[in-house]
Amino acid sequence: MTLDVSIPRTELQNYLSLALYFVTQSRRVILKHQETGFGINFKADRSFLTEADVEAETVLRNAIAKSFPDHGIIGEELPSINLKSDFQWYIDPIDGTRNFANGIPTFGTILGLHYKETPLVGIIDHPALGLCYHAALGLGTFCNNKKIAMFDPLITELGEHEIIILSTRGMFERSGEAHLFDAFVTKHPATYIYYDCFGTTRTAHGQAGAMVEFNVKMWDISATKLLVEEAGGKYIQVREHKKEGEPSMYSIIFGKASVVNLLLPYFSPTS
Amino acid sequence: MTLDVSIPRTELQNYLSLALYFVTQSRRVILKHQETGFGINFKADRSFLTEADVEAETVLRNAIAKSFPDHGIIGEELPSINLKSDFQWYIDPIDGTRNFANGIPTFGTILGLHYKETPLVGIIDHPALGLCYHAALGLGTFCNNKKIAMFDPLITELGEHEIIILSTRGMFERSGEAHLFDAFVTKHPATYIYYDCFGTTRTAHGQAGAMVEFNVKMWDISATKLLVEEAGGKYIQVREHKKEGEPSMYSIIFGKASVVNLLLPYFSPTS
Repeated sequence: MTLDVSIPRTELQNYLSLALYFVTQSRRVILKHQETGFGINFKADRSFLTEADVEAETVLRNAIAKSFPDHGIIGEELPSINLKSDFQWYIDPIDGTRNFANGIPTFGTILGLHYKETPLVGIIDHPALGLCYHAALGLGTFCNNKKIAMFDPLITELGEHEIIILSTRGMFERSGEAHLFDAFVTKHPATYIYYDCFGTTRTAHGQAGAMVEFNVKMWDISATKLLVEEAGGKYIQVREHKKEGEPSMYSIIFGKASVVNLLLPYFSPTS
Repeated sequence: MTLDVSIPRTELQNYLSLALYFVTQSRRVILKHQETGFGINFKADRSFLTEADVEAETVLRNAIAKSFPDHGIIGEELPSINLKSDFQWYIDPIDGTRNFANGIPTFGTILGLHYKETPLVGIIDHPALGLCYHAALGLGTFCNNKKIAMFDPLITELGEHEIIILSTRGMFERSGEAHLFDAFVTKHPATYIYYDCFGTTRTAHGQAGAMVEFNVKMWDISATKLLVEEAGGKYIQVREHKKEGEPSMYSIIFGKASVVNLLLPYFSPTS
């Protein structure tokens, strides 16, 4: 992939190195809470919120603000700052808080740095699994610092063995498109549902053919495009729902190009 | 749980210790294949089969036969022996071979010892995750040798946060009951699908409310009842499909008792 923004490579590598350092700090906070226990609350939208989410986001924010005081920060749990900056950091301290709260180890921390809406750096860290995925624009995708690339089977029809990962049906319902979920699971009987960024990293790693996520926020997917494209995959935004005074909701599909292409017709406006 | 079979406790502990030792050998074989790569074939039913499945089952069979030459062995990949013995070992060397073959680390080895159809010892080992779950009749359930027990929320209705794990829709289709899958995902929009024994161990560990598995063979579930009941959970077989000359197919539900009880009406003959 060519660098389509005017960021020198050394500067990009510096952002990446620091972002990876920031994530070692959130990992430490999360593992500490996992060991010692934590309080659980519910947010206005009735989703889970734990002490670990807030503390992990706080250490990431403090670290970013210390290194880059002029950069913007948009996190899931705390108010945004410097929204007019060309550089915006997106933070989801614990993606899959319901899983974290229940002890299911597949949750992860998502950190993305965007420059004028172009992703420069993307990280998904799975503290409980000891797996950290990172990518930077033009620099490739890595799992625990080992370069990874997708093998595309170049299929022309979807066989029963092609693994497809979906959001839960509830996520499709948010935009009244549960019929798309139903069509997927009926047509592709071996569809999986993980409900956290474990699906994203499985797909970026080429372990699944494609993943479809419906009605998520930018902090849920700020690292996805880079992790997938830098590994040789395809990423398409199929929906954007804007609502006055709220962050947009995005629906995306990504994975091996041949699999993504075969699934795209589901999302045509007439389907 | 009381010991309802006449096996002395010391003998039971001996079976358990040896079974745990057997599984260290299959884990070594599987991790070796994962590191060096392996050939992939497809079985008559079009499911995956790798060199690792056959070699892992072979080392388990050899180890069992050496310690217990008179015991029966029923494995997924190789012919049964000593079928008339009161003691039967069930082996699924890699449950979730499709996941193993694709690099998804949630697959596992399932080993169960039954005495006159009563489970005595049950093990699910996740080599790639470094997690081994075991249970023995009356001796409790353990994760990496640490005792675990379920916390039952004693709910009287299913909230949106109760995690329910299902087989894929394809598994329900095998007995023409895909409508049950559809009813589940529609009524419980946050249902998860893992497609291997990671769901079983999540549920035995109390990380999910309940799991429903449809149309699986005994080697898929030979450890499940013990792992769940010894952790304080509830296990119910809701279907058994017998077919001349083939192993029976079972459908089961298990998990926290209050959650299982709320889901049971789905399986009434009239639903």
